[in-house]
Amino acid sequence: MASVREVLSGDRLSLARLLSQIENDTIEGRAALSELFPHTGNAHLIGVTGAPGTGKSSLVNQLAHHFRHPPESIPPRRVAIVAVDPSSPFSGGAVLGDRVRMRDLAGDPGIFIRSMASRGSLGGLARTTSGVVQAFDAAGFEIILIETVGAGQAEVDIARLAHTTLVVEAPGLGDDIQAIKAGILEIADILVINKADRTGVENTERALRTMLDLAHPIQRVYRHHGSLEVVPSSIAESPQEESVWIPPIQKTIALDGTGVQELGDQIARHKAHLEKTGEWESRGRTRLQAELDNLLQNTLVNRWRDSLSPERYQEIFEQLIERNLSPRQAVDALLNGGPRR
Amino acid sequence: MASVREVLSGDRLSLARLLSQIENDTIEGRAALSELFPHTGNAHLIGVTGAPGTGKSSLVNQLAHHFRHPPESIPPRRVAIVAVDPSSPFSGGAVLGDRVRMRDLAGDPGIFIRSMASRGSLGGLARTTSGVVQAFDAAGFEIILIETVGAGQAEVDIARLAHTTLVVEAPGLGDDIQAIKAGILEIADILVINKADRTGVENTERALRTMLDLAHPIQRVYRHHGSLEVVPSSIAESPQEESVWIPPIQKTIALDGTGVQELGDQIARHKAHLEKTGEWESRGRTRLQAELDNLLQNTLVNRWRDSLSPERYQEIFEQLIERNLSPRQAVDALLNGGPRR
Repeated sequence: MASVREVLSGDRLSLARLLSQIENDTIEGRAALSELFPHTGNAHLIGVTGAPGTGKSSLVNQLAHHFRHPPESIPPRRVAIVAVDPSSPFSGGAVLGDRVRMRDLAGDPGIFIRSMASRGSLGGLARTTSGVVQAFDAAGFEIILIETVGAGQAEVDIARLAHTTLVVEAPGLGDDIQAIKAGILEIADILVINKADRTGVENTERALRTMLDLAHPIQRVYRHHGSLEVVPSSIAESPQEESVWIPPIQKTIALDGTGVQELGDQIARHKAHLEKTGEWESRGRTRLQAELDNLLQNTLVNRWRDSLSPERYQEIFEQLIERNLSPRQAVDALLNGGPRR
Repeated sequence: MASVREVLSGDRLSLARLLSQIENDTIEGRAALSELFPHTGNAHLIGVTGAPGTGKSSLVNQLAHHFRHPPESIPPRRVAIVAVDPSSPFSGGAVLGDRVRMRDLAGDPGIFIRSMASRGSLGGLARTTSGVVQAFDAAGFEIILIETVGAGQAEVDIARLAHTTLVVEAPGLGDDIQAIKAGILEIADILVINKADRTGVENTERALRTMLDLAHPIQRVYRHHGSLEVVPSSIAESPQEESVWIPPIQKTIALDGTGVQELGDQIARHKAHLEKTGEWESRGRTRLQAELDNLLQNTLVNRWRDSLSPERYQEIFEQLIERNLSPRQAVDALLNGGPRR
């Protein structure tokens, strides 16, 4: 398979072709992914999620720029951006403007940007995203930024792909945002308040800190030297022991780059924490297990569907429509060979 | 099963107990749902979705009030509100304040409100929501408002439960919102611009109208008297033939009730359209098929998992972690009894 060798050697065109094959779930794409898989496991996967209107895309651009142009003594890293939009189930196209991103990052061979929209099921999007990330990883991209538009379960699932998850907030986004925070806070490794020059930033910060404190008695319990330990979240402000991680809150203004350097430092600090505590490896295991289970489920259902007689399905379905069978009774009938009533 | 009789006779406490059993997916809950199923199919299911910050909850409250206190000549309907929050995968609790809703609607026996958070998989939430909606339907609620927080794939899937889907927008919610609109517009039966007293409402309306027009050549093709017909979306402003539905744009201010009466009229008009064109029935079929497929998939995977030896799974999984097998090779090994390499 020539294209695999070329992808491993850094050829952009071959990589772009492979990404399309992965997105289309072709036989060639599947074979190439299996061949590339032994070369994966080196990249730092960074998930960026949060509600609409928080300026995630600009922040991701700034982070990419930061990793390409780091402070001296740190070598520049190759950066891939995967922008996932689960809210576009129909279009199949990428909604986020690559054009806009390209203005800042164009021409840099150490940057690769791929936008992805959902083409059907969410499980499908998670599978495809995982494949695309593996391709970038094998191709030698050291930083992979996975950005999701929106803040629902889909985004949570995709964020679980990452070693480090950034949850982005912004001041003054209305009441529903509070509701979203409640669920999404629990996956955050780093909390970012973007648009920090807006009025209301103190309120947002206070709200986040309160939620961290509230979450603390239940959530902020860490295994430390073999025993469980409860850590007051207030020490998030003071230097942390490396075995304990409390999500720091970082203010940024993506438009002018304020706070991006510090955010990059927090990301590096989180990576060091993961490596020291063995979490780097355990998050990798969790990610691969989720991928295995997703793929198993998908394959299982497809095989069963291929073995089913369409007439039998139709017959049972009509009984469901007539309300002679309930949905669960219909399932029993299809799987056990006979309706229960 | 005593509780089923009591639910059918309108007993609120029995209904509340049943809803908990459905949410917990108990054996009693499953049995009761099968027994109630023949009594379903009467309610008008109305999905309400849209980005955070658009004021969906207030609008849903106002709509509930509208259906309870309609203009004379229309009888009041019994109204259930199902508030689904897929962005809370961990809490299991309902995030939206029932307390807040209750202030307006408390004490009315013709209103029942249930908040639901995701307890694991999205497929699980869709299954549970479907069961809760069936219980309300069987219990004689004529209007069921299904509100989802957020605007991702999860919300789209849940909106598909409905006969009529309202997509709520609001002026001035930032650029990401535009991206969301692209996907979500295609599921809208009625577009609502809430907070229509805000500045920027003309821009929002113009943007929506442009998107409707852009979507038109592809989307706005209807089967009419047996042949395909393309209808310019500009006639959305003029009286429509009942066989053609172009999503109207309705401006509202949920806080003071402006436009809610008109929105209620649009909903009634959409119902009449669905009934006249046979879409009422076909949407019901689509809904039941989606539920059947979801339940089939879930049952199939659970049965396979129960039959699998944990040692075998662990052995293959370790080979995946060592990167001796790719995810797809691991699936082949698990399903076919031997690794391919």
